[in-house]
Amino acid sequence: MPYGGAMNARVRSAERRAEIVRAALEVIAERGYRGASLAAVAERVGLTQQGLLHHFPTKEALLVAVLQERDQWDAVPDSRWRLDLLASLVDYNAMRPGIIQTFSALLGESVTEGHPARDYFTERYGRVRESMAGVLRAEYGDTLPNGLTPERVAPLLVAVMDGLQYQWLLDPASVDMPGAFRDFLRLLGEDTP
Amino acid sequence: MPYGGAMNARVRSAERRAEIVRAALEVIAERGYRGASLAAVAERVGLTQQGLLHHFPTKEALLVAVLQERDQWDAVPDSRWRLDLLASLVDYNAMRPGIIQTFSALLGESVTEGHPARDYFTERYGRVRESMAGVLRAEYGDTLPNGLTPERVAPLLVAVMDGLQYQWLLDPASVDMPGAFRDFLRLLGEDTP
Repeated sequence: MPYGGAMNARVRSAERRAEIVRAALEVIAERGYRGASLAAVAERVGLTQQGLLHHFPTKEALLVAVLQERDQWDAVPDSRWRLDLLASLVDYNAMRPGIIQTFSALLGESVTEGHPARDYFTERYGRVRESMAGVLRAEYGDTLPNGLTPERVAPLLVAVMDGLQYQWLLDPASVDMPGAFRDFLRLLGEDTP
Repeated sequence: MPYGGAMNARVRSAERRAEIVRAALEVIAERGYRGASLAAVAERVGLTQQGLLHHFPTKEALLVAVLQERDQWDAVPDSRWRLDLLASLVDYNAMRPGIIQTFSALLGESVTEGHPARDYFTERYGRVRESMAGVLRAEYGDTLPNGLTPERVAPLLVAVMDGLQYQWLLDPASVDMPGAFRDFLRLLGEDTP
């Protein structure tokens, strides 16, 4: 092709894929993964279902792209996390309810039988608990103020973040998610403002 | 009808309804509410879909019955809850993964748009936070060891219970849900065994 046409086609295809993934995030937030249809995603980006299948041959392939997208945003090197950065992450999450809704809906569905995101979440939580234990160890050493170990507090830290998201999504006027997360850090002995 | 036939019919109908609700709990655990079909529930209890509709005219009516069923189990008078009873509740939950799976899947779905369980969960969480604040006040008075109030710790208590359920359902071999919940009570200053 003249004028770098092949390159342009590749760029256009990548842009189109990104657009489809964004639409899929929205549709999953609205209907969950099981309730989402490729037809609804296609319609949102002005494609026929056939056109969408050219980019993502199956609904599961699209889900994989959605999950990879998330891993890209949240990919902060383990060693750079600190407890106060986690509080900032929760502040940031409170400004993006759509995305939090997508992943809260997916997490909920993932515990049902044979859900295609189940392995992803199982593996992810194992990794996140380990990485949170590392953050806690960097802050407190091997023993936390209350005699607990980093490994025992890590699942609580993760549970608080997830559990607060559901309460906040259901009733944002009554639940101050960032404030509540800082209260949890205070229980750990943090001197949080 | 002779021989108390009308009474027997009412009893049989109530038993049949209870059987349908149990089947619905299972189907929702497996597929979520949006993925559940009345046909699948009917098949499980050996009814035609028409026969099921006689007892529950819509899928939503069946969901309402499922949610009411839960409220019956968990209906402990507020004043009788104590923190150590909450730990026993988590022990009990760890012995009934099916039910916990049903309600974790429903909670996850409830944050999607127009979900028929959304109001139920919003209202329920408001009530549960209030009741947990009462439990904490009975235990600690107005100020908790870390300078927090019962109202500020209540959403954390609820979040930890919910969040641990997801981690445990996904990976029961790695997550000791009752132990982790007791660790959270320890952060509150409880002297838990």
